[in-house]
Amino acid sequence: MSQWTPANPHFRERLHANVETPGFTRFLGTTIERVDPGISELVIAFREELGQHHGYFHGGVIGALADNACGIAAGTLAPADTYPITSEYKINIIRPANGELLIAHGSVIKPGTTVTVCRADVSCRTNEQDTLVATMLATLVNVPA
Amino acid sequence: MSQWTPANPHFRERLHANVETPGFTRFLGTTIERVDPGISELVIAFREELGQHHGYFHGGVIGALADNACGIAAGTLAPADTYPITSEYKINIIRPANGELLIAHGSVIKPGTTVTVCRADVSCRTNEQDTLVATMLATLVNVPA
Amino acid sequence: MSQWTPANPHFRERLHANVETPGFTRFLGTTIERVDPGISELVIAFREELGQHHGYFHGGVIGALADNACGIAAGTLAPADTYPITSEYKINIIRPANGELLIAHGSVIKPGTTVTVCRADVSCRTNEQDTLVATMLATLVNVPA
Amino acid sequence: MSQWTPANPHFRERLHANVETPGFTRFLGTTIERVDPGISELVIAFREELGQHHGYFHGGVIGALADNACGIAAGTLAPADTYPITSEYKINIIRPANGELLIAHGSVIKPGTTVTVCRADVSCRTNEQDTLVATMLATLVNVPA
Repeated sequence: MSQWTPANPHFRERLHANVETPGFTRFLGTTIERVDPGISELVIAFREELGQHHGYFHGGVIGALADNACGIAAGTLAPADTYPITSEYKINIIRPANGELLIAHGSVIKPGTTVTVCRADVSCRTNEQDTLVATMLATLVNVPA
Repeated sequence: MSQWTPANPHFRERLHANVETPGFTRFLGTTIERVDPGISELVIAFREELGQHHGYFHGGVIGALADNACGIAAGTLAPADTYPITSEYKINIIRPANGELLIAHGSVIKPGTTVTVCRADVSCRTNEQDTLVATMLATLVNVPA
Repeated sequence: MSQWTPANPHFRERLHANVETPGFTRFLGTTIERVDPGISELVIAFREELGQHHGYFHGGVIGALADNACGIAAGTLAPADTYPITSEYKINIIRPANGELLIAHGSVIKPGTTVTVCRADVSCRTNEQDTLVATMLATLVNVPA
Repeated sequence: MSQWTPANPHFRERLHANVETPGFTRFLGTTIERVDPGISELVIAFREELGQHHGYFHGGVIGALADNACGIAAGTLAPADTYPITSEYKINIIRPANGELLIAHGSVIKPGTTVTVCRADVSCRTNEQDTLVATMLATLVNVPA
């Protein structure tokens, strides 16, 4: 189904463990809805601690989720003995994220042994309707595990 | 002391209120160490909820703090009836943020009635030594308060 | 066919004039292959003056074409008495641009009265095959004409 | 004088050859005013072919010069058998570049065996006064020469 073949057949286990490790990603309540070669879908549900002054999702949460979606997408294609870390990203916040769910779709634009380029689109769900709120372009570098 | 003159003489009160509002910024434990026309310094202390798998500050925390530092710096120069929101930013993570304190210095590169461009440098403090861990370039747009 | 309605019915004339004005864009040999509401396609043919040391398209040409494609796409939706200028962009160069033709597809992600966000994908054509060589995310601001 | 030590003692010769090779950089009329470990200064003089519709330096020229300044700065620290190529950059254009000379100061923020992060500030000179017109943040990757 995918144009990419994962180098590590156990990529799913590793990536699920990633969001379940105690720390910031788990604090955000990040869940992996989908992970396939070169593709990820991550979700965060709203709660007050994740909001800004209007009660919308805070930009910092949007950035963290999009970055994470890029990392998970890149991680599906990384060799078994490496994992990708974010070298840099750029994000455009295009609308307020006013809703109950934040959904990030990450995808690999160009995999590489050293450098992988990914994008992520973040939508916010209100009344079962998803609206695009941000888009990210990221560069990740594989480092030894 | 500064090359910029704030349009709103009460900019400090407004910006301090910003980080004290319940929500994500307060959850992160963000404190404003300094705020002067065109300049900001923000700090976050480490705790497990802000870490990644190695126990360093998570990239999402670094991005959120740098973005906040840009917003506070831009906010010092915004007209009284407006406030800046982040349109976009780009961040390079250059070293692991392994330490007890994360410190962001935000500064305005070019203020404007509509668009303000800022940068932020983020350092991590270990054993009283600060090491640069990330640098951000951000574009903010003033919206009616 | 498009999800966007142009505010200025004469947008095509204005945008074609843009690339024909003497100066850098004309020096590059830029031609508009397509311009529809929210969408653009621009092309540059290779010649030695546009190359780097390997004889591929220079990164500066790729950046200029992608930026131009974003500007033309944004220009289709700008009000008649304004035109968009580039506030900032970020580009990832993902492969060498080794071929006879450089093709940029620009599209509007989010139009606005003040700020418009666009993306552009740049491909290089060799032996009738197009390969993605770069992708851009750009922020444009409308200014009075 | 510099905090960095170049791995290749002949870095100057190699970098000067870079801008003198026939192609886009030479077409732009790029000259290296200064090149020291981790630092570069590049200049382009205005002529009509480099202008936009107002007769200012075109954004594409500004982007190419800033990118080149980052590449030259990174090149001073690259191992003798490698050279840096631009993986990605982000540039903010903050003022019109209305003047006779475009000057880019490139500097290395973080050198690395694989990834080097640089910034460049671009000024425009009119009547002997330099005004900042753009700032860039770039990621470069060393590849075998």
